[in-house]
Amino acid sequence: MTTTSFNQGKGLGQPVGVAVLGMGTVGTEVLRLIAENPNAYANRIGGPIEIRGVAVSDLSRPREGVDPALLTDDALGLINRDDVDIVVEVIGGIEYPRELVLAALKAGKSVVTANKALVAAHAGELADAANEAGVDLYYEAAVAAAIPVVGMLRRSLAGDQIQRISGIVNGTTNFILDAMTSTGASYDDALAEATRLGYAEADPTADVEGHDAASKAAILASLGFHTRVSFDDVYCEGISKITAEDIEAAKEAGYTIKLLAICEKLVDEEGNKSVNARVHPTLVPNEHPLATVDKSYNAIFVEAEAAGRLMFYGNGAGGAPTASAVCGDLIGAARNKIHGGRAPGDNPYANQPIADFGEVPTRYHIDMRVEDRTGVLADLANRFANAGISLRTVRQEEDAENEARLIVVTHEALEKDLRAMVEELAALPNVKEVKSVIRLDS
Amino acid sequence: MTTTSFNQGKGLGQPVGVAVLGMGTVGTEVLRLIAENPNAYANRIGGPIEIRGVAVSDLSRPREGVDPALLTDDALGLINRDDVDIVVEVIGGIEYPRELVLAALKAGKSVVTANKALVAAHAGELADAANEAGVDLYYEAAVAAAIPVVGMLRRSLAGDQIQRISGIVNGTTNFILDAMTSTGASYDDALAEATRLGYAEADPTADVEGHDAASKAAILASLGFHTRVSFDDVYCEGISKITAEDIEAAKEAGYTIKLLAICEKLVDEEGNKSVNARVHPTLVPNEHPLATVDKSYNAIFVEAEAAGRLMFYGNGAGGAPTASAVCGDLIGAARNKIHGGRAPGDNPYANQPIADFGEVPTRYHIDMRVEDRTGVLADLANRFANAGISLRTVRQEEDAENEARLIVVTHEALEKDLRAMVEELAALPNVKEVKSVIRLDS
Repeated sequence: MTTTSFNQGKGLGQPVGVAVLGMGTVGTEVLRLIAENPNAYANRIGGPIEIRGVAVSDLSRPREGVDPALLTDDALGLINRDDVDIVVEVIGGIEYPRELVLAALKAGKSVVTANKALVAAHAGELADAANEAGVDLYYEAAVAAAIPVVGMLRRSLAGDQIQRISGIVNGTTNFILDAMTSTGASYDDALAEATRLGYAEADPTADVEGHDAASKAAILASLGFHTRVSFDDVYCEGISKITAEDIEAAKEAGYTIKLLAICEKLVDEEGNKSVNARVHPTLVPNEHPLATVDKSYNAIFVEAEAAGRLMFYGNGAGGAPTASAVCGDLIGAARNKIHGGRAPGDNPYANQPIADFGEVPTRYHIDMRVEDRTGVLADLANRFANAGISLRTVRQEEDAENEARLIVVTHEALEKDLRAMVEELAALPNVKEVKSVIRLDS
Repeated sequence: MTTTSFNQGKGLGQPVGVAVLGMGTVGTEVLRLIAENPNAYANRIGGPIEIRGVAVSDLSRPREGVDPALLTDDALGLINRDDVDIVVEVIGGIEYPRELVLAALKAGKSVVTANKALVAAHAGELADAANEAGVDLYYEAAVAAAIPVVGMLRRSLAGDQIQRISGIVNGTTNFILDAMTSTGASYDDALAEATRLGYAEADPTADVEGHDAASKAAILASLGFHTRVSFDDVYCEGISKITAEDIEAAKEAGYTIKLLAICEKLVDEEGNKSVNARVHPTLVPNEHPLATVDKSYNAIFVEAEAAGRLMFYGNGAGGAPTASAVCGDLIGAARNKIHGGRAPGDNPYANQPIADFGEVPTRYHIDMRVEDRTGVLADLANRFANAGISLRTVRQEEDAENEARLIVVTHEALEKDLRAMVEELAALPNVKEVKSVIRLDS
């Protein structure tokens, strides 16, 4: 057993034993941060961190920056060692880490994880296991890496009432949309560039179809509204159908297209409360702070009753920023091991129903090609009026011969009514094509 | 004794008794938030909050939103009641709240304060008292109200190494500078407008001379660098000498003038480490996120080794945002009373020396009026070169007859060398006037 040596200042307590599961980009950075700052960690915790072992799947692969004696392929054995107090899970995936995290919690070890997919899919089960054992489950790194939005929702804003959270929580899609906006590139070209630069994975599905953002939306909604919102509760639409033409139309109208995760508290006309979480491409007014978030940066906008509007901005991914969040959590969990107390955990006391997305008020930007004939606009305007959907802006311009381009921005209406309206429009002989439908955010 | 009634859910613990000292704007909002959300508070804490009393200086003044039976003018008596667990100090001032906060800590009560001046002047004394009694001292609201920068430095970034903190932490001065920038108004007119709209107090000295920002800089530097930095350690220069001409010159050069609080970790050529905290008007490049922070908003930029650049933006003042931060702290302190454990407190283990500001590298923007004669520019350029100060940009233009305007932006040099250079320039016969000297931030 190798232990790092510490300059144990006055009053420092017993060492805290840590097991790290996984040694990919994040795990490697976590080990580096701990190894480079032993004094800082010991002083901030009140006792030194000692790495008891690092579980990896392939023992034969050379690993830098870690004593080979610490490596093991027996993750469960490592977790169950008596001298392990805290387990850091940075493997990724869902089923295998779920088993390991549950085993750790049941064995009375606090857990720090960066795994958004795991937390979004199994928050309730994991929280129950943590509560039963009286240990901590931390996951700051699961949403927007080092942007401390989890801690802010759990602690800083605990005395406030969150009304809405909206944010850019996926760097890959923001990189692609930003590239399309700034260069006029097509979706395919921007994705290729993102892949070339390492911003997109070989299989980009989880990012571009919004699944990654939906996991984060589920976590944010759960924390903000004290209600269990899981991945399956999140309406999710990705960016793969966004065209250069959509981007151009948005620009002309003063908007920037962003993939937003939106979490809202809703109250219907009868006063019934519910919560909604969704992910979709969104037209954001250029003057809104989220519109200017460029490259692969993340930003999260929180609206709270007393605090008003807050925004948090930074690197939402990457080994070092993610490790920063993991290590902040590790220090919190270690402090609790030494000084007692528990971190505020999953707390779904409000238990609000999840709104049917059809019943959620949204706003649409609809780009159509219509017959260029007298009466067409009047007919379409009547149909919107009959459906009870009022229009905010209408722009008509000549397109091709006998064809006009009609761009309609609606006021807020129920999602189901807007969707039905688009279906009705698409079926009309006067409407040659509904080119694109993108929701707006205020 | 009036106690608010609670829907005590399953598993809720004993009530936590709270004394509120002061019922100004913030105190009133704190009481409102607690009264309006009893269920949320009880569930988030694990037991209900019960207000034991509210100390005010003038009992005869009518107070809305609080049971009159709770009011008292005996603050010390209230603090020392056996059924008071937590004391919320929202009085303002330094000496009187210092006595009360010390009395509360010594009596074993955790304290939540919004008092930046108190914390910046007496952090060490207060922390020692809290440590001796084993209780918590929270002060999220002391810096930038509901922007959770204190919690972020204490917890979220605890596993990282902070390199630099720079921010707009005073809403009054940002309102004034923003008004000057957007309307071309003079300093006096912008201040008058700020006063009329309630953004500036009748005596605006503490804001416009940078004292309020300096208190916050001291707190941020202390937290970020784990070193005790007090108000007196902060170099402080206000905005009262900024002219419409300075704003105009900044605009022409692509900068916006902001009053920044800057906290830096420094390493000199011999590897000696130190910390610096300062407040001064600063030219911020227009493309920097801090440049676009308008009105009375606050924003704090943090650079950390692993997390990279993070920014936090929101309302930095006002009753409700400040109360939001106070109540977040209150819930943290109350959780610890019920579940055990202590919040990470003042932790100056790193104990770095405070740098002499003269030894800190800065950059100057110098606006001069010089004789419009051959050789003047060469002479001045030589003087900069001889002083070892290299120039980043030089702009010369005709001003009046026989007079040229010369604007010089330097590269980084020691503050003392830049200051000596300005003194040398001002004394030269060729230099008619040094109109303004403003530092730059990258």
